[in-house]
Amino acid sequence: MKLVYLGGGVGGAKLLQGLAAECPPENLTAIINTGDDFEHWGLWISPDIDTSMYTLAGVIDPVKGWGRAEESWNVFEEMKALGAEDWFLLGDRDMAVHLERTRRLRTGSSLTEVTQHLCQAFGVKVRLLPMTDKPRATWMHLADGRDMPFQDWLVKEGGVPPVAYVEYRGTDAPSPQVLAALDAADAVIVGPSNPWVSILPMTTLRGVAERLKRLPVIAVSPIIAGTAVKGPLVSMIASILQQQATPDAVFSLYAGWLDTGVIDVQDAPDREQPGRIAAPILLPDLAARRHLARRLLDILGA
Amino acid sequence: MKLVYLGGGVGGAKLLQGLAAECPPENLTAIINTGDDFEHWGLWISPDIDTSMYTLAGVIDPVKGWGRAEESWNVFEEMKALGAEDWFLLGDRDMAVHLERTRRLRTGSSLTEVTQHLCQAFGVKVRLLPMTDKPRATWMHLADGRDMPFQDWLVKEGGVPPVAYVEYRGTDAPSPQVLAALDAADAVIVGPSNPWVSILPMTTLRGVAERLKRLPVIAVSPIIAGTAVKGPLVSMIASILQQQATPDAVFSLYAGWLDTGVIDVQDAPDREQPGRIAAPILLPDLAARRHLARRLLDILGA
Repeated sequence: MKLVYLGGGVGGAKLLQGLAAECPPENLTAIINTGDDFEHWGLWISPDIDTSMYTLAGVIDPVKGWGRAEESWNVFEEMKALGAEDWFLLGDRDMAVHLERTRRLRTGSSLTEVTQHLCQAFGVKVRLLPMTDKPRATWMHLADGRDMPFQDWLVKEGGVPPVAYVEYRGTDAPSPQVLAALDAADAVIVGPSNPWVSILPMTTLRGVAERLKRLPVIAVSPIIAGTAVKGPLVSMIASILQQQATPDAVFSLYAGWLDTGVIDVQDAPDREQPGRIAAPILLPDLAARRHLARRLLDILGA
Repeated sequence: MKLVYLGGGVGGAKLLQGLAAECPPENLTAIINTGDDFEHWGLWISPDIDTSMYTLAGVIDPVKGWGRAEESWNVFEEMKALGAEDWFLLGDRDMAVHLERTRRLRTGSSLTEVTQHLCQAFGVKVRLLPMTDKPRATWMHLADGRDMPFQDWLVKEGGVPPVAYVEYRGTDAPSPQVLAALDAADAVIVGPSNPWVSILPMTTLRGVAERLKRLPVIAVSPIIAGTAVKGPLVSMIASILQQQATPDAVFSLYAGWLDTGVIDVQDAPDREQPGRIAAPILLPDLAARRHLARRLLDILGA
């Protein structure tokens, strides 16, 4: 069975790691959000691709959940001394990836090709596909009338100012590899990621939703017991949807193509609901990630 | 008295350090060779500017004579692991300079402006002027028929294959600041640098030689007792000029605008020669550099 996984950053990478441990790599393709990508210090940074790649390679910082383990900050300290912007933390080993990505992009490689090269260098066997090879920026429109790129809102503003709505600027064309992977897929799993920031940038690409409609799609809730494991999702649900943070609030954004929503056992109602399955979806370690992955594969009959 | 200094890499930076200690900074402008500049890993690297800047700032690696003291190599090691070219050594702190230079160049600043910013960040008060704001590459034509950029010959080939002649490719326009500095100068000092690799790329720029002709010009020999303190100059004199390595072999390349050649006391003939002055020109430490600088300033009446 050919599976496609749709994933974003830290949460998405955790379930992906479980799936990678449970599936033969030739049967699993992960389409990764690039709406958070941005240029910084002249380098092209793809945070969600790197978080996925580092997690699969086992070199992720286990405490922060992003960046490299055993990292040093010598270039960063020197850049600060030279007056460069220091609001975005870049470690030395992490920076090598951005340098090599940027260099290859500038010499004409696509982001898809560069990602393939980097994955190979890191020994990552699962195919990671950037959602598109062209810029598509997740753009935050705030309740106070300001608007800014996602990283500015998340890092510079601490993810605090209420969001009115989210826009995707730039291309609406997925890469040909993304469409081909969906065309070849037997089922799709959507990771426990922020819908506006990670999933919708992908599913609103031209031709993606219509393909999802034709496939069995399972999504894992990024909300457990009214909270998000990581990130500003609860306040975004409040400010954008004027709703409490529930799995159903998230799944409502996937209407039209979602078949099954997986919620945490803590959120399970007394009796089963159609289209909802309860499972332990907190993913603190590889055992929990593999366990959920196995459960999802069982549901799909894989 | 307004002085202009023409300098290249390691040797040039040593005398410049002495001059900077003996002259008020507003009276000293150093024009620096950029013929060795090249792009590597997508970064724009200006080796002679950096060597001059690091030497003046007191952060140069005192053993290697280039790069930063107390350097680390974390990005470099990771780049090797990613399959990047590893023939040119780039330390972490050094890399920050290249990153910031490249970023500023890409956003439209000139190399002159970027150099000014970097010097300010390093507390360097002497004005360092890149010889030009546009690419001009020192290109090595080898006796075996091959030709290549300078860094390829020096680093990849170890500076070993005999050189037939040297070409300067690219712009022949100096920066406006270079011409203005020469127009305002009362005298010029040429550092003890490789003539083909460091000095001639500057003096063959349009309008430079004619200005040098009108000014008192002193050059310090890069050859002492038949050897070069650093680098492949002796073999270049042999292969290009078919001569022994003497100060006069170097000074012959400056015919037309050189007034006084300063040779080492070891090379002094029994009786004085017109246009030649003997002094201790080995520059191992700041005391020796200041001593020679003072001597040159005395000769010029500064």
